[in-house]
Amino acid sequence: MANFGFSSLSVAAPFAPHWREARSAVGAPDLLEKAKEFASLAEAVADCTLVLGTGTVTHRKPEQQVVLLQAIAPLIQRELDRGGHIALVFGPEKHGLTRADLSFCHLLVEIPTEPRQPSMNLGQAVAVCLYELATHLAPPAAVEVASPVRGKGLPVDSVHLDLLAEVIEKVTLSSHYSPSSMRDANRHDIRLLLRRLSLEQRDARRVLGFFRRILHRLRG
Amino acid sequence: MANFGFSSLSVAAPFAPHWREARSAVGAPDLLEKAKEFASLAEAVADCTLVLGTGTVTHRKPEQQVVLLQAIAPLIQRELDRGGHIALVFGPEKHGLTRADLSFCHLLVEIPTEPRQPSMNLGQAVAVCLYELATHLAPPAAVEVASPVRGKGLPVDSVHLDLLAEVIEKVTLSSHYSPSSMRDANRHDIRLLLRRLSLEQRDARRVLGFFRRILHRLRG
Repeated sequence: MANFGFSSLSVAAPFAPHWREARSAVGAPDLLEKAKEFASLAEAVADCTLVLGTGTVTHRKPEQQVVLLQAIAPLIQRELDRGGHIALVFGPEKHGLTRADLSFCHLLVEIPTEPRQPSMNLGQAVAVCLYELATHLAPPAAVEVASPVRGKGLPVDSVHLDLLAEVIEKVTLSSHYSPSSMRDANRHDIRLLLRRLSLEQRDARRVLGFFRRILHRLRG
Repeated sequence: MANFGFSSLSVAAPFAPHWREARSAVGAPDLLEKAKEFASLAEAVADCTLVLGTGTVTHRKPEQQVVLLQAIAPLIQRELDRGGHIALVFGPEKHGLTRADLSFCHLLVEIPTEPRQPSMNLGQAVAVCLYELATHLAPPAAVEVASPVRGKGLPVDSVHLDLLAEVIEKVTLSSHYSPSSMRDANRHDIRLLLRRLSLEQRDARRVLGFFRRILHRLRG
């Protein structure tokens, strides 16, 4: 929850000793300390206008509409936009939500798992659901998705590529890698190769320095 | 991995007692039993043409391109379509991937977590990444049917990139481009540079032949 920026945790009918322990542990995150405790799921979701249960549909026939996880962000967004309160409900690790629990849910969210291994670890199921929401709900997600690539270097312009091609060509001759009769064909190939490499400016500067040094040694 | 239909697990330099225990546990999933064990990350990714490291960029300045998790499916799909092999690399729970580990990675995948709580539990990070891929990659059947895109060259695997890096390193020394005291730093940088260049197999063969010739002349 903390990883994906969710802060409102409610716990329904927790097993008291475990819950006390988790909550008072040294370094327990803020959201555990501030978690609200309810005697029942009904009370926990009392003020919610859209309650989404989670689970697999392998072993039972669901009694409400099933929506794939990838499809819930727009539903939640619409609900938020009209001022609603949403709850995403997870069952206990062992058996998940009961039929009775699900009766408080508007929809059942299905995480698209492999039919042969449908049952997920609780912490992982929560992480996957919140990742999906964090990346597809409006405020933080829109900004981040818009610029997926960071730290990309500046591209090299054609004149600098050709400067590099020229030095490399001289090295192919000085090193006897290639006879001068092949000169035109090689120049063509080197040009193409350099354009295929998606070099950045820092790469090009470096490679140029390197080949100049080689040329100097070969001639010396 | 089993939840999202991924079956090929490789483990690099595991802590032997823990790994033995995990693997032999009653009910250990098929994929743990079939996992391949390697002495190093370099060996584990040797046959891979696209190696994606995972981690947060909060505490260090990454040396390769960073791509948000939501943007990697198309990159992986393209690599699969042209016959490449992909590795998604996760570091140990405590400290993640080291700088040396990352020098074997073409890209760094960033899971879009909250700046105040960027560090994820390992199992949850794996679940989130594989959920993203499972829901955005074409089904395996479709991938296998697809033939390599025509006109687009074959990618170079990690072991051939390292072969090339080795020869280039020798040239930097033989040409006195760089003193041997800089050897480790240079090796690291060359590794990163070669992974940034998106070389094709024909490029790599050619560049290798070229540098071998240079080396021969420099030594002769």
